[in-house]
Amino acid sequence: MSIDPTATLGNGCEIGEFVVIEEDVEIGDNVTIDHHVVIKAGTKVGDDVRIQAFTLLGKQPAANKKMARKPTAALFPLTIGAGVTIGSHVTLYHGSVIADEVFIGDHVSIREEVEVGRRSVIGRHAMVEPKTTIGQSVTVQTGCYVTADTTIEDFVFLGPCVSMSNDKYMASGKGVHTGPYIKKGAKLGNHATLLPSITIGADAVIGAGAVVTKDVADSTVVVGNPARRK
Amino acid sequence: MSIDPTATLGNGCEIGEFVVIEEDVEIGDNVTIDHHVVIKAGTKVGDDVRIQAFTLLGKQPAANKKMARKPTAALFPLTIGAGVTIGSHVTLYHGSVIADEVFIGDHVSIREEVEVGRRSVIGRHAMVEPKTTIGQSVTVQTGCYVTADTTIEDFVFLGPCVSMSNDKYMASGKGVHTGPYIKKGAKLGNHATLLPSITIGADAVIGAGAVVTKDVADSTVVVGNPARRK
Amino acid sequence: MSIDPTATLGNGCEIGEFVVIEEDVEIGDNVTIDHHVVIKAGTKVGDDVRIQAFTLLGKQPAANKKMARKPTAALFPLTIGAGVTIGSHVTLYHGSVIADEVFIGDHVSIREEVEVGRRSVIGRHAMVEPKTTIGQSVTVQTGCYVTADTTIEDFVFLGPCVSMSNDKYMASGKGVHTGPYIKKGAKLGNHATLLPSITIGADAVIGAGAVVTKDVADSTVVVGNPARRK
Repeated sequence: MSIDPTATLGNGCEIGEFVVIEEDVEIGDNVTIDHHVVIKAGTKVGDDVRIQAFTLLGKQPAANKKMARKPTAALFPLTIGAGVTIGSHVTLYHGSVIADEVFIGDHVSIREEVEVGRRSVIGRHAMVEPKTTIGQSVTVQTGCYVTADTTIEDFVFLGPCVSMSNDKYMASGKGVHTGPYIKKGAKLGNHATLLPSITIGADAVIGAGAVVTKDVADSTVVVGNPARRK
Repeated sequence: MSIDPTATLGNGCEIGEFVVIEEDVEIGDNVTIDHHVVIKAGTKVGDDVRIQAFTLLGKQPAANKKMARKPTAALFPLTIGAGVTIGSHVTLYHGSVIADEVFIGDHVSIREEVEVGRRSVIGRHAMVEPKTTIGQSVTVQTGCYVTADTTIEDFVFLGPCVSMSNDKYMASGKGVHTGPYIKKGAKLGNHATLLPSITIGADAVIGAGAVVTKDVADSTVVVGNPARRK
Repeated sequence: MSIDPTATLGNGCEIGEFVVIEEDVEIGDNVTIDHHVVIKAGTKVGDDVRIQAFTLLGKQPAANKKMARKPTAALFPLTIGAGVTIGSHVTLYHGSVIADEVFIGDHVSIREEVEVGRRSVIGRHAMVEPKTTIGQSVTVQTGCYVTADTTIEDFVFLGPCVSMSNDKYMASGKGVHTGPYIKKGAKLGNHATLLPSITIGADAVIGAGAVVTKDVADSTVVVGNPARRK
């Protein structure tokens, strides 16, 4: 393994083979780090965190000349709360905050400037874009795509493979980018599709495979393509 | 590399750089293990298996306080049959059985208590949830999501990015969880969506993008949202 | 690290921990290779390329007895142009060409015999199948599935989680496999579904969640399931 001398580790940590921990990383007590984990410079890991094989924490954002969204210059370090479980083959970026007791499944990627609230679950292979806020006790199931500039309130349930978008004009340079706003307790069925800037009301239910083209009121059920009240 | 002294390897194996093989692993003859592979304790690998880079075999299940499905206490080891090919960046869990000559693409994850039958193909990035049975000569194409508690019989074809669900009430605590039952020879088009507990009949054809809300009879073709007979 | 003596590296390269570079690899000047990267035999990497952790370059194709598409015997090496950025946990196959200034996101996999044109962006978790041509300044957003035998012209925009297919008879052995042909400047909304052999006209717009069952004329907008002119 390769641990930078400026990194700090708490008591009772277990560290596997071929682990890399870069400079100024801070790791709490009783953290379990499996084989082949890479923790980039400055990342902060709370107590009782479990990190599985082939996971990368604290990746710096990057872009090419074509991309609209350039990385923000100065981000705070990736910060992981106490009791978080992180699966295998995960990528978490610098500049995000993962609250206590969150569960992050295998093969997840979460970009910069994302907040994930306490006890939320981010399912395997889920993809979370930048500048997105996910509340407490939210379930984002396996294979979901959460676009940038999105707000998901507490207790929301996203079924498997839900997709969203945030750019009405699809890279034509018009308009602002705004992801959906999903209110407390809403439930979205698997493979549902949300158009940009949609608000999903509190406790609304979106059917599996629905294509939501306009706002959905609180406690309303919609299904179909385009989605209509049931 | 790091190979535990209690692990056993057959004749003619090739092992790459930075490989980790934990205690009590049993590996057959003529197995090829590429660089950066991790094989967790107790895993059994048959003859002539090929394992590509950054793959993790035998991962133990985990959960946080919010998750409904807790790991089963005592599972048997991950068991991989003869002649299996496993791609790169794959995660296979402890407690599953992969039969002879199966092909598992890159970036796949398969959870615990899953059976995959002889000569089946699990396409790249596919996600398979726990307690699911996949028959022989099944094709699960790239990007599919196979939910928990699902049965897929022999010779079924799932096109790319098919999605399913198993929880009609979406985490509200009502009802049992049951995935779909897909009978012999059924073919599902790409991006099809299945609601929970649906039965797809033998040799049925589900159109691309169809949203299947009720059972489909044998040898029937359905398309649309909701899916209807063509 | 493990670098084969037949590999060549340019000036000013930075190489992380636990990197494997196999025989006859050619690496240009000022290339940055993060920890745990594997570069397979013969791969050519241009100047100023950035490769992030857990990425595998130059993977050889494989198949089992059931799979229709067998690997082509003699492919040229994976060739990566100048100024390309490659994310973490990426798999790129032998026999593909990535042009200058392309951006490839985390967790992407691109198969053999694929060309990606200058300044194009392949979003995170995207999956690209063999024998596919992607033009210049194309955007393939996060989670897209690009099937085999597909042509995507310059300036096309694929929103998140677009899916395609190339096999009308779904592995029944009838017909040829042909993916879609997507003409210059077309824009596809998130979660759109394309049936096999479809042509999408230049500057056409496909709505989010649309299921495209027949050709779409130039500069036409279609939405719904099945997709119809708006």
